Amino acid sequence: MKLTTLRGAGRDGRLAVVAPDLRTAAFAPAIAPTLIDAMERWGEAEPALRELSESLRAGRAAGTFDFKPLEALAPLPRTYQWLDGSAFAAHGELMAKVFGIQNPQSERPLMYQGMSHQFLSANEDVPFRSEADGIDFEGEFGVITDEVPRGTTAAAAAGHIKLIVLINDWSLRTLAQIEMKTGFGWVQAKPACSAAPLAVTADELGAAWYEGRVALPLHIWLNGRKFGAANGREMGFSFGELIAHAAATRSLCPGTVIGSGTVSNENYRQIGSSCIAERRAIETVDEGSPRTPYMSFGDSVRMEAVGPGGETVFGVLEQCVVSSPTYTTI
Amino acid sequence: MKLTTLRGAGRDGRLAVVAPDLRTAAFAPAIAPTLIDAMERWGEAEPALRELSESLRAGRAAGTFDFKPLEALAPLPRTYQWLDGSAFAAHGELMAKVFGIQNPQSERPLMYQGMSHQFLSANEDVPFRSEADGIDFEGEFGVITDEVPRGTTAAAAAGHIKLIVLINDWSLRTLAQIEMKTGFGWVQAKPACSAAPLAVTADELGAAWYEGRVALPLHIWLNGRKFGAANGREMGFSFGELIAHAAATRSLCPGTVIGSGTVSNENYRQIGSSCIAERRAIETVDEGSPRTPYMSFGDSVRMEAVGPGGETVFGVLEQCVVSSPTYTTI
Repeated sequence: MKLTTLRGAGRDGRLAVVAPDLRTAAFAPAIAPTLIDAMERWGEAEPALRELSESLRAGRAAGTFDFKPLEALAPLPRTYQWLDGSAFAAHGELMAKVFGIQNPQSERPLMYQGMSHQFLSANEDVPFRSEADGIDFEGEFGVITDEVPRGTTAAAAAGHIKLIVLINDWSLRTLAQIEMKTGFGWVQAKPACSAAPLAVTADELGAAWYEGRVALPLHIWLNGRKFGAANGREMGFSFGELIAHAAATRSLCPGTVIGSGTVSNENYRQIGSSCIAERRAIETVDEGSPRTPYMSFGDSVRMEAVGPGGETVFGVLEQCVVSSPTYTTI
Repeated sequence: MKLTTLRGAGRDGRLAVVAPDLRTAAFAPAIAPTLIDAMERWGEAEPALRELSESLRAGRAAGTFDFKPLEALAPLPRTYQWLDGSAFAAHGELMAKVFGIQNPQSERPLMYQGMSHQFLSANEDVPFRSEADGIDFEGEFGVITDEVPRGTTAAAAAGHIKLIVLINDWSLRTLAQIEMKTGFGWVQAKPACSAAPLAVTADELGAAWYEGRVALPLHIWLNGRKFGAANGREMGFSFGELIAHAAATRSLCPGTVIGSGTVSNENYRQIGSSCIAERRAIETVDEGSPRTPYMSFGDSVRMEAVGPGGETVFGVLEQCVVSSPTYTTI
């Protein structure tokens, strides 16, 4: 099942089910007006949404309309909790090496709580105050959970994964360095993320939903040139393990989004990277200093995860970074 | 104006205005059913809520009922963003000294994003999985903002402070040490906070709303014995400065809660502390090792900020920590 959110009266948008062929969609107001509402009572909402999905497939759903991915908002335009991991060992080891820090990733997952009151849509321009902040993208997979009781084990956590998403976790690297040294994590360095148009159930991935990981290549283009195609299969911790880590001392609310961190593979020199910081780290190791600049205003990044038949799985994220020195409202 | 939230049909509870003498209250469904709803359109909600407050004072409000603080939920039982500072220089310098770290607090505020999908009520038991996690309280003041545009200055930020609250930021010190070293901030070490029953407008504080700070003593008792009475006046950064720091690269959503961090004064040896960790740090400096243990199951902590006439300002937080090795739901 594929879900999307379109513009609606409120801040949470309007939930729609998308047909398997992505051509049509239908709103589901009688089932759940918004995705956050569906997450809060997923047990009853899911079967009804799946029934609507089946009707769409069969061409017998009422009130269908053409699905236009460019009009989609983020699946959850806002939610109450975004916990982002850094679960790819290749990335963690490389960054630790370059920054001369001990890599603490081996024993327990790395995770921070990020901004969740706004997820940008996949095609809107992304405003930043200054290029000097070190504007970078991070391509990563994420999962959306229902309510997860405190103390849930990694094995049980897998059952709380209800939807899978694709996220661009915008990062400001100059600020990240400053904030990381405080031990308090990131606030200024991590503004709103962007999200691809479709949130899909695990069965949509088939065999690519592999041991709690998204075993798909994440293709990334920077200004139209291929930048990376790392596969989510090499995630060092599964999403179930990340959820269990998050839920060790707190219950997770329905609609919690858990991120994988930058998708990264051992053969990053061949396959490329999912963020500029990783490429700069490789350049530093290989050449003594970084060569690839962070993003400038006007630069664009495109991300897409594709299935075995070349089909899009979450839709396309394609965005331009723009200057916004003045006030913006949300 | 004093606002409170009582149990309601949904996860956000039910907003009520409390009379100045704290004896009566009235729901405000026609104005705003919940506090988060009021925050999202504060411009229109505030005058109507103030009018209801005035009617309560004059004894001519319709639908009044006895206000029972023990029945109050947190003013915002959940919200989209909780950003907690550490703005008291006395606390920061002491902790840096004891842990042998550079105190990065002098130039820019310390701040992390914490769990916001659940704030516990002021009198409910607080369940933890293990005493070995180092259970500690942190008494602190907080403010609730309306929407704050990105790039708002500290001077302009003051105008976005709509309500003031009292928070117990529960902390698990054993886990905090581990997580702080990663640079990613805290997830496991910072479960749900608790909040005192009343959220009040700045005018309720009179002269105690002093340069964007809550210049009131925060009285704390641990198991019935006085633990501290530090005054919020010594905050090293004002709430306006904390908001500006938070809003440097993101807009803040309505209902954002910004915390001061543990209230702490230069004369902590005389006035006491607002968390056990600080007292243990003082003991380490003075005696070579900490003597005061973290909390055990069955221990209780009480917090209250009082005005110049001895009157309660936010109501009382009084809670018992209990063992909860099994699943709990939110």
